[in-house]
Amino acid sequence: MKKINVGIIGLGTVGLGVLKILRERRNILSEKIGVDIVLKRACDVKLRPDLKTYLPKGSFTTSAEEVIGDPQIDIVVELIGGIHPAKEYITTALAKGKHVVTANKALLAEEGRELFALAQDRSKNISFEASVGAGIPVVKALREGLVANRFDSIFGILNGTSNYILTQMSKHGWGFPEALKSAQKNGYAEKDPTLDIEGKDSAHKLVLLTYLAFGRLVDLEDVFVEGISRVSGLDVLYARELGFEIKLMAVAKKDKDNLELRVEPVFIPAGHLLASVDGVFNAIYVNSDKAGSLLFYGPGAGQLSAASAVVSDLVDLAQDVRAGLFRPNLKIVPDNSVSQLRKIQEVEGRYYIRFMAVDRPGVLARISGVLARFDISIASVTQKERSKQEVVPIVMVIHETKYKFLHSALEVISRLDVIKEKPVCIRIEQI
Amino acid sequence: MKKINVGIIGLGTVGLGVLKILRERRNILSEKIGVDIVLKRACDVKLRPDLKTYLPKGSFTTSAEEVIGDPQIDIVVELIGGIHPAKEYITTALAKGKHVVTANKALLAEEGRELFALAQDRSKNISFEASVGAGIPVVKALREGLVANRFDSIFGILNGTSNYILTQMSKHGWGFPEALKSAQKNGYAEKDPTLDIEGKDSAHKLVLLTYLAFGRLVDLEDVFVEGISRVSGLDVLYARELGFEIKLMAVAKKDKDNLELRVEPVFIPAGHLLASVDGVFNAIYVNSDKAGSLLFYGPGAGQLSAASAVVSDLVDLAQDVRAGLFRPNLKIVPDNSVSQLRKIQEVEGRYYIRFMAVDRPGVLARISGVLARFDISIASVTQKERSKQEVVPIVMVIHETKYKFLHSALEVISRLDVIKEKPVCIRIEQI
Repeated sequence: MKKINVGIIGLGTVGLGVLKILRERRNILSEKIGVDIVLKRACDVKLRPDLKTYLPKGSFTTSAEEVIGDPQIDIVVELIGGIHPAKEYITTALAKGKHVVTANKALLAEEGRELFALAQDRSKNISFEASVGAGIPVVKALREGLVANRFDSIFGILNGTSNYILTQMSKHGWGFPEALKSAQKNGYAEKDPTLDIEGKDSAHKLVLLTYLAFGRLVDLEDVFVEGISRVSGLDVLYARELGFEIKLMAVAKKDKDNLELRVEPVFIPAGHLLASVDGVFNAIYVNSDKAGSLLFYGPGAGQLSAASAVVSDLVDLAQDVRAGLFRPNLKIVPDNSVSQLRKIQEVEGRYYIRFMAVDRPGVLARISGVLARFDISIASVTQKERSKQEVVPIVMVIHETKYKFLHSALEVISRLDVIKEKPVCIRIEQI
Repeated sequence: MKKINVGIIGLGTVGLGVLKILRERRNILSEKIGVDIVLKRACDVKLRPDLKTYLPKGSFTTSAEEVIGDPQIDIVVELIGGIHPAKEYITTALAKGKHVVTANKALLAEEGRELFALAQDRSKNISFEASVGAGIPVVKALREGLVANRFDSIFGILNGTSNYILTQMSKHGWGFPEALKSAQKNGYAEKDPTLDIEGKDSAHKLVLLTYLAFGRLVDLEDVFVEGISRVSGLDVLYARELGFEIKLMAVAKKDKDNLELRVEPVFIPAGHLLASVDGVFNAIYVNSDKAGSLLFYGPGAGQLSAASAVVSDLVDLAQDVRAGLFRPNLKIVPDNSVSQLRKIQEVEGRYYIRFMAVDRPGVLARISGVLARFDISIASVTQKERSKQEVVPIVMVIHETKYKFLHSALEVISRLDVIKEKPVCIRIEQI
């Protein structure tokens, strides 16, 4: 049977997962493809003892160049993450005529334009199923399965850590710090959780989904990003009372010829499928013009889950290599009904707002007076508790307004002497 | 640009959808694939006026042989449905060296063994994305995206008509006949709805999902099938009271080396994602060993939705034809951890049971006495109403037992003089 030689750079969690699957499923995979996927070279900074069982004899090296430079290797799998030297490895691998498989969302979101152009130039593929939603085959679904479709919007719960934290807050009535601590204790959050909880990881993934669905590789700066660290236990509680759940949502949404891109905590109706996506699970909800509204759901992280996606990319490429031909990944074609990106200031929406105000007659009149000046109309107001001595939460739901009007109004309101904390506002997503 | 010639047989709802998409998306698709998909011949028994806008000049014919026999046609799309003459058309098309795309679940489920063997023999593909879940790319997901996985179980809501009826019953408290009538009025059920409501359509689709996930093309007779016509409004009501929803579920489930295959109405916990799948939507919930638990959700029917799937198959095949090579669909390899199919009699499960009994002291003792003789233990009992004159419902939840024990027990119980109707039992699915 013909052999396809693969080299892996980076033997961390996902890398080890790939080794495990390639070893366990080698016979089945070769029967399915008609070709044997052979791990020829595997590289990391040092040889950890747990790797030994899974590494073919003589395959380990500490030199990435030995992997990339091996003329017998057909496909290079990059799993070290980060921008450098991952970018240089991939560039060299493409230049040397190898296909690339990567799970590196940060790299592709930030440097993808250059890398995809190089791949096209060299008639090679960069495959990246594992970079969004781990083992959920959503890249393939958007690119191939839904090839006949234009998209109206994508709503993604793309970061397992954030979703785990929000779920814990909602289930246990915890505050954010408490839930983060629990996530860290259970191995669902890094010691430095910034990339996850501040929304950047979701933004990277949103850039890739936008590329697949709308044919534009936008700059990361074009995505409005806000994380979950400012979400309080109180807001999660009030969300539930109002019939919502709070989720960190990555959104790409077409409105006429504008595309809005944002990652932020939002309220979604408790009855919506996305509201039931709990814990470390991810989900991508897609509105397409031919196949309708679709949901793809599954674990958003995990050694074998991400490795499952990497191996599916390897199998696709191995079929080509075997045939001795280049079957390029379907070309990404810009959706020309989109002519510009909408700035967050111009994005409209309904909002939940929480004011912390002194409990005194006339407070509501002053707040609503300011809102009226910005043409913002109120759908409902509740003062949650009564207590003469204390500051009380006033919870408001407002009708559609632009981000800029709301934030200007809140700026003014927060300077009122009766307002004791910075007001909190959370968008009510229209899905 | 190179051209790929396609012929379509059957210009009903889905066929027209394919014409529409190929026309509207022709330029985008050719840019994505690098090849032009040309509709060379389209066949139906007569030329309906609504087709004219979408048919390229001179492409229409009433002779299927003209489509299959055209040496310039690379891919034949079969959309007439049913077993004959669809089978003969596909057989001839393969024999003449054409790839085949079909949405015909009945044909593939019942005659697939012969057809797939012929395709392999002729080095051609039979692609069938549209046959399960319409535009949801679940065939591609199982075959390619999850290629590295073994599967433990698949739970599918695969029939939009049945799910629409059950949803209406649950939402409005309707009985089955009322809900069916409403479905027919709204165009969601055929005049003769047997294939949908009696579970056969779901069984066809389950056979195909089982083929993809477990590598076995089982006989339709190996699937236990029960439809929804016996589900009463009362059972839907009690389901909700107990915290469940009733869904017509297609299940393929591995237990040790046994595989159980069944289509039946079941109770599922109201909190489960599948319980939120309402109306004509479909969903496929998959437990895989590497990528974990995944859900694929979307409209289960519809002109453009099914056509979206057909076109994605066309695009896959067009890439091959362009390259002048045969890239076979990934081979289906049997999961050799499954050694036999489990007969329904041996399948274990918890159950909801409803007895209609005379309201008289001692009735429960007699029922539970029979259950005890069959070693069936009761988890809970509720007598729903009290009324001396009337027959009252007794609702029971029982612990795990085998189908055969339960049905033997119910047989005995139904002969008791205090029992006034055939007892109803519905499995409580363990997902």
